[in-house]
Amino acid sequence: MRIVLTKGRHLPTMASMLESSKIQTLMTMAEVWRFYHDDLVAAEQQTKRSLDSKTHLVNEIAEHLLLSGGKRIRPLLMILVSKLGGYSGSESTLLAGVVEFIHTATLLHDDVIDNAEIRRGKRAARFLWGNKASILVGDYLYSRAMCQAVSLNNLEVNATLAEACRRMTEGEVLQLSLNGSLKISEEDYLRIVEYKTAILISATCRLGAIIGDMNHSNKDHLTAFGLHLGIAFQVADDTLDYVADGEKLGKSLGKDIREGKITLPLLHLLKTCPQSERFKIEQMIQSEKGILEDDLEMILNLMKECGSISYSMDRARDFVERAKTNLHHFPDSVSRQALLTLADYIVDRDY
Amino acid sequence: MRIVLTKGRHLPTMASMLESSKIQTLMTMAEVWRFYHDDLVAAEQQTKRSLDSKTHLVNEIAEHLLLSGGKRIRPLLMILVSKLGGYSGSESTLLAGVVEFIHTATLLHDDVIDNAEIRRGKRAARFLWGNKASILVGDYLYSRAMCQAVSLNNLEVNATLAEACRRMTEGEVLQLSLNGSLKISEEDYLRIVEYKTAILISATCRLGAIIGDMNHSNKDHLTAFGLHLGIAFQVADDTLDYVADGEKLGKSLGKDIREGKITLPLLHLLKTCPQSERFKIEQMIQSEKGILEDDLEMILNLMKECGSISYSMDRARDFVERAKTNLHHFPDSVSRQALLTLADYIVDRDY
Repeated sequence: MRIVLTKGRHLPTMASMLESSKIQTLMTMAEVWRFYHDDLVAAEQQTKRSLDSKTHLVNEIAEHLLLSGGKRIRPLLMILVSKLGGYSGSESTLLAGVVEFIHTATLLHDDVIDNAEIRRGKRAARFLWGNKASILVGDYLYSRAMCQAVSLNNLEVNATLAEACRRMTEGEVLQLSLNGSLKISEEDYLRIVEYKTAILISATCRLGAIIGDMNHSNKDHLTAFGLHLGIAFQVADDTLDYVADGEKLGKSLGKDIREGKITLPLLHLLKTCPQSERFKIEQMIQSEKGILEDDLEMILNLMKECGSISYSMDRARDFVERAKTNLHHFPDSVSRQALLTLADYIVDRDY
Repeated sequence: MRIVLTKGRHLPTMASMLESSKIQTLMTMAEVWRFYHDDLVAAEQQTKRSLDSKTHLVNEIAEHLLLSGGKRIRPLLMILVSKLGGYSGSESTLLAGVVEFIHTATLLHDDVIDNAEIRRGKRAARFLWGNKASILVGDYLYSRAMCQAVSLNNLEVNATLAEACRRMTEGEVLQLSLNGSLKISEEDYLRIVEYKTAILISATCRLGAIIGDMNHSNKDHLTAFGLHLGIAFQVADDTLDYVADGEKLGKSLGKDIREGKITLPLLHLLKTCPQSERFKIEQMIQSEKGILEDDLEMILNLMKECGSISYSMDRARDFVERAKTNLHHFPDSVSRQALLTLADYIVDRDY
């Protein structure tokens, strides 16, 4: 049964949704986007209003990224989790913007660190305005986010955000210190993924739970939900880097290996392929010429042969399942269904 | 009368200090450093403990700057202002570290932005560990500062810091967008100085007043004291860049003009020197070769002739006087005397 979820008369009753609760997820992702469309638009408008720097350059650069159609996973999570707790006020909209600011700040700095040329299918900000402006506007967005957050006068919100930022930045340094090392373990890789992506997604869910005034146990469940979902999201992203249609992904195929980033599919490949091939790949990565088109094709073919892509996607799915177990504790509702759908989408999207 | 201020039996009674209150400042700066030596050491130790990242690279880079003997103006201000309010707890020590972290983060990012090679007489962090590490460790220090601050569970502290960071980063972007422009006015220049330096010094004083539990009016006086003192500090710094002994200053003479920064002495020179000289200087600044040694010597000589150095130092002194008027509202005390001495030192130091 496919339920058409739109606001107003097409909205199914909760009873009709729960009747069919044998099917784990009742909504499609398109339905989730449609159902929460107005909330997402409100969050986007609030984000734009919050930006509002007196310095034109700040607005220009930040808008370039903020309005370039990212996946909006974080604002959606914030809205869904706060609604799961029965919250209907406007703080989720404001906090969605806060999290997007922090995320955008990390993207601006990441692109400088990685010498990136493309971001979300557009030229990276550093390419258009230079590294200096990207660094400073990143700093501005971090501090603007903190200002917005403190305006809620909620110590727990401030503490959650500050701790998330600390761990994220620590993860970025860890990644830099391991960059290009072929000796990292799957455990190291997952730790980096946790710090650089999952921590902020986890904090997003915790913030939703805080403003939803949930009890400690439920806050912890949602924090864990976000953490596992965040790991799944990044592992899927890293895997799609080797398979996705470059145009849809908004970046070129094999971007990570070209930047010296050793992610899960490559780690699996190096562990499972014949030693002679492993030696060749290691030489390619360490070569000053960088990864050429032919090298990449050979690596992609080997990954298919060795099952590295399916291994990585399976790992991502494991994390999604672990995330979902944390939702068992909540009574069924549209927002819970939407969270389950979103969790599956994290690994089933093709870009 | 010169009072020897050391802890214990040499400490003069308040009465004896106030007797000689005709002399505006009773302490020398050396006495201030000595008198508050233990508090400053406690602040430094707390800063080191707060750093404590699990990632070795973070500690290494941050310590390179934090322990390289900066002027420690901010920790001293934090201690003095909190004592002015009668505060004797340990929060001032923690917040002194917070402010030093934020300041150090801005230095790390500034050095990347400015392609700086020297900082505090040592090689800049970016020169030793690269731009990428400097950006990320800067981010780490920002977020670590916020974590430390939220641990005090004081909403006013969080709000003061977040707002200060927002305005500072906005100022940095403003400076970047005006960098190298010869058309900036003295007003523009002072606005940049306010944002990039005075805001954090002002916030330091406000934080001291907050934990000192002062009333609104006194908090505002100390915020204004810090703001004017901060402007004076930066104007003096910018002026010393053209006169100081390079070794003492920990940077090379004329560093600002070489980096395309138009500061007060140069603005004054361009306004007052003969048009033919002005034309020559503008060409030097805009030349792709940059400022050569001969160019610098000619500019320094012209500045002496036109009185640009004394004009700028007088402006700095004006701001010190404006700062000091904000202390009239407080009863006399050792910490008030020390603040007055520090205010004068800001412009009378030779490095």
